[in-house]
Amino acid sequence: MTSDRASLIPALKNIATQLRIDSARSTTQAGSGHPTSCFSMADLAAALFFSEMRFDPQRPHEPDADRFILSKGHAAPILYAAWAAAGAFDRSELLKLRELGSDLEGHPTPRLPFVDVATGSLGQGICAAIGSALNARRIQSDYRTYVLLGDGESAEGSVWEAANVAARDRLDNLCGITDVNRLGQSQPTMWQHDMGQFERRWQAFGWNTIVIDGHDMAAILDAFDQARSVTGRPTMILARTEKGKGVSFVEGKDNWHGKAFKKDELEKAITELETQIVPGVPVNAPALIRKPEARQRAEAASKPIPAPNYKLGDHVATREAFGDALARLVTANPRVVVLDADVKNSTYTDRAEKAASDRFYENFIAEQVMVGAAMGLSARGAIPFASTFACFLYRAADFIRMAAIGSNNIKLAGTHAGVSIGEDGPSQMALEDLAMCGAEPNFTVLYPSDAVSTERLIALAAEKQGPVYIRLSRPKTSVIYANDETFTIGGLKVVKESADDVATVIAAGVTVDQALEAHERLKASGTSIRVIDLYSVAPVDREGLLAAARATKGRLITVEDHYSTGGVGDAVAEAVADGGFTVHRLAVTEIPRSGKPEELLERFGISATHIVNAVTSLVGTVAAR
Amino acid sequence: MTSDRASLIPALKNIATQLRIDSARSTTQAGSGHPTSCFSMADLAAALFFSEMRFDPQRPHEPDADRFILSKGHAAPILYAAWAAAGAFDRSELLKLRELGSDLEGHPTPRLPFVDVATGSLGQGICAAIGSALNARRIQSDYRTYVLLGDGESAEGSVWEAANVAARDRLDNLCGITDVNRLGQSQPTMWQHDMGQFERRWQAFGWNTIVIDGHDMAAILDAFDQARSVTGRPTMILARTEKGKGVSFVEGKDNWHGKAFKKDELEKAITELETQIVPGVPVNAPALIRKPEARQRAEAASKPIPAPNYKLGDHVATREAFGDALARLVTANPRVVVLDADVKNSTYTDRAEKAASDRFYENFIAEQVMVGAAMGLSARGAIPFASTFACFLYRAADFIRMAAIGSNNIKLAGTHAGVSIGEDGPSQMALEDLAMCGAEPNFTVLYPSDAVSTERLIALAAEKQGPVYIRLSRPKTSVIYANDETFTIGGLKVVKESADDVATVIAAGVTVDQALEAHERLKASGTSIRVIDLYSVAPVDREGLLAAARATKGRLITVEDHYSTGGVGDAVAEAVADGGFTVHRLAVTEIPRSGKPEELLERFGISATHIVNAVTSLVGTVAAR
Repeated sequence: MTSDRASLIPALKNIATQLRIDSARSTTQAGSGHPTSCFSMADLAAALFFSEMRFDPQRPHEPDADRFILSKGHAAPILYAAWAAAGAFDRSELLKLRELGSDLEGHPTPRLPFVDVATGSLGQGICAAIGSALNARRIQSDYRTYVLLGDGESAEGSVWEAANVAARDRLDNLCGITDVNRLGQSQPTMWQHDMGQFERRWQAFGWNTIVIDGHDMAAILDAFDQARSVTGRPTMILARTEKGKGVSFVEGKDNWHGKAFKKDELEKAITELETQIVPGVPVNAPALIRKPEARQRAEAASKPIPAPNYKLGDHVATREAFGDALARLVTANPRVVVLDADVKNSTYTDRAEKAASDRFYENFIAEQVMVGAAMGLSARGAIPFASTFACFLYRAADFIRMAAIGSNNIKLAGTHAGVSIGEDGPSQMALEDLAMCGAEPNFTVLYPSDAVSTERLIALAAEKQGPVYIRLSRPKTSVIYANDETFTIGGLKVVKESADDVATVIAAGVTVDQALEAHERLKASGTSIRVIDLYSVAPVDREGLLAAARATKGRLITVEDHYSTGGVGDAVAEAVADGGFTVHRLAVTEIPRSGKPEELLERFGISATHIVNAVTSLVGTVAAR
Repeated sequence: MTSDRASLIPALKNIATQLRIDSARSTTQAGSGHPTSCFSMADLAAALFFSEMRFDPQRPHEPDADRFILSKGHAAPILYAAWAAAGAFDRSELLKLRELGSDLEGHPTPRLPFVDVATGSLGQGICAAIGSALNARRIQSDYRTYVLLGDGESAEGSVWEAANVAARDRLDNLCGITDVNRLGQSQPTMWQHDMGQFERRWQAFGWNTIVIDGHDMAAILDAFDQARSVTGRPTMILARTEKGKGVSFVEGKDNWHGKAFKKDELEKAITELETQIVPGVPVNAPALIRKPEARQRAEAASKPIPAPNYKLGDHVATREAFGDALARLVTANPRVVVLDADVKNSTYTDRAEKAASDRFYENFIAEQVMVGAAMGLSARGAIPFASTFACFLYRAADFIRMAAIGSNNIKLAGTHAGVSIGEDGPSQMALEDLAMCGAEPNFTVLYPSDAVSTERLIALAAEKQGPVYIRLSRPKTSVIYANDETFTIGGLKVVKESADDVATVIAAGVTVDQALEAHERLKASGTSIRVIDLYSVAPVDREGLLAAARATKGRLITVEDHYSTGGVGDAVAEAVADGGFTVHRLAVTEIPRSGKPEELLERFGISATHIVNAVTSLVGTVAAR
């Protein structure tokens, strides 16, 4: 041991004790929280923040700063205590933990400048850490990413998706730490203190593993040293710890998960913790922090994206236009990266891979880590486009929820939406994807109907700050817009209108072609309808919809290639409700089945014929065939 | 090798060849499908169906019959071919594959009597298989469960959740087979033919593993024999195979995933396959099948459930009433089983564990396998109640989607819904759960506001065939119903009404107390409102809502502890739209944050004060405070 280290260790131990005290105080003040989950990781946190990581507490977003993600987000109080000890903000703020007026929430969110992604839904932080580590490669930085997991958390499947991908991508700039404190929320964890169970798993998944006593500061520092020296694979430090470490009446005891100390318990706890402070070791915590090298970085500027190049009336699937648009975008903009889950030949993102293979990340069939990595990439300045069949994005629903909480700048594209995919059957049909993304109040939801609008909307999605979902279709649809047509987020297109329109049909995606066919058929029998392409589902153009409603006697019909809940119809209904208008909906109302696309549009009530019948019935005129 | 086996092997090989031919023919006839994914598993399927498994093709639901779940659902054509060869239906039906009129869909669904759960979203079948294996214990049967996975599929995290739980539960009646055919959809899999990668993982997770050549029939039969002899842990047979096995122009070749042969390719393929038929081995496939022992089973009858026992005006959290109701239910009904994901002390299902520990299954922090196991249990006659915090059920969204497709008889309960959980913050708040379950057209969605209705609705949920979701709250709410009050799925309760009501406030869960308080405050200032407790969100009582709308001048206000999309407000709006009524909504419209429950109801616009203001503003009277 060097003499530096000999003096460092008692200082770090004192910092750890102080972090325990701060975590106990803040949770008691809040009246809730997880102090014992903080205690088990206190030594690890002290070593990470005040010896291992290079960062500037005043400028956490510095591109070359090391990252720390607290995957076990319920230990938030010690994360906050560590940043306060580092000097990021005043320690007195800690006592506002969990108050409505404070950003020191029950679980960490990026409302705090030093938090990259919201955690608190377990098994997600490690996926985001992969994105952070991939970003270091993108910007050619040597920053390292650290992520701390709970042992109970390791039962989440997403952890093992991450384990596979990180090993496959040889992410030696990624260091995980598992806080093996033996106790879950309601009972001991699956593997308790059997460290071999953890070690065997991580080794089998291709990681370097280091098993340590998580309360032995020298061992912790050695482990970080070793992890830093390993090349070609990520490291998982498996730290055996005690939940509640340092306070004898809770240490290793059941039934203390998620419980703050009562006032008298707090005093007892602090008294005991204070006895553990090594005397004669004055601690200037901020002075211990290693700063990253100051470096000038000028990210290559984005080039203009070429205009679309289609012919009106041609037939092109929006998923294919997406692939082409993405290939152009990734070529033009060095911040754009692309993530796939082994469907790139169906989503056409293989074209983007060809255009920029170094910014294309293959996750194989593992949608959770794909979206999680996108979250991490976005937090570090990349603009990630993650795509798969829309129904399989649903596998990552909880990641999407957390991305919304973190307001991450991710772009999700779901192809093969709706019954219009045909023969593959219901398991491959996304019918809930708009409900999933539309439910999140800060998601932009786009649903192009043709190739031109797809290309334009992909470009807009990249520019728009915040989470965006783009819904794409499998069948070829007509090119209905000129290449110089412009689109806006929150807009719509009135694609057919006349002064005599008796009703407005609001379509999107594949149903726009159906609405246009219905328009032709009705016109042949002397009935005019207005047709709207609702390419922006959220935000929705309330004024545009109200204007159409007023112009067509309040007769609004939506045509939706998805279940009736949470999609186009609900968005329109909510938008026009205050105007006193109601909406007649054509949507999928039962579990669909295999068949030809056109048969299914007919069978499930969203074909041109159904639109004609709905108009006819609403208007009360003689049926037009 | 016994002489029996010596004659069996060529017969099985001939069956395998015939299964390949049938899979090729049916997919070409359909014009789409995955013949090469069928070819790789043909030898495995032949051995399973015609040597290993005990079943009666005419009575697939026999309680003591072995089960086969095709986790890689895209190989559906060979599953159908195997059942046809077994005599379950006429082989000519195979040529209707993927047609609208046929139940032989692109991916398997329980529309077919021999399919337990819908597959086609990868990584789910193995989770369902755990449920099937657990059910064998429940009914004390020695039936075995077999599940066949793809190698690409093994990247899904849910597979490793299943691996943990099956090993932990010592499910030696479960046998997995991984068809390691090396090729994914868009490229080679992560591990290709490196069998050690698979073996290390499964061994680390505690499984018995057997690596074989998946085209060596003797090795396959030996592996099944060995698996049957292992006690105390599940077995994974890792079968090295070739995608497209048997047809030289596709065998082991890239770019053949999910492609049916063209007519001329089919002829070439069949010609080549026919040369592989061992001559002089007449095959009577159905005669080879081993039947399960005929056994009389009389399941113990369900006993009556005691009535609730609360006092009007007491304060009880619905999550706690749920735990008590479940404890009574599991005691009364031997078909009821309970699944947890390490939150049983917060959902109060630990009370059900105490009541019937042998029907309580702990999944630790792994929500996907919890819901997947519930699917498998339900397919075998159990009535599974799976519960966790409602926001974490979202982790299993794609399983819930597939459970809807399979119309599985699962009961999901999500506790801690909405902003009313308070200090833990947004990561722990379910605000999209109603959108998730409500989007599925065959889900029953219940949302009780008090303890009595909770108990009654839990009992109704158990009786109702099909998927049910019950939304539960963290805070204590008033007991507002007498213990003998009756409830119906699809009903609502008018809890306050008078002839002078100027508006109807439709609340649910925690917002019923808020609406009742608003009712009191408005009454004090001379304004009467109707208050509805919408405890059944799907189906919704359309007539009841329309009647209230008509009685209160069309003034409807919903108060929703969730995001505005896909929940109570959308359900009400859709129900009353045809009556020409619109709805004024109070719901959460931004990402929430930590704070006290009552502060959050206020901040996010769903408190009594907001209801009073909304009524006042709608009615246009002077503000009542």
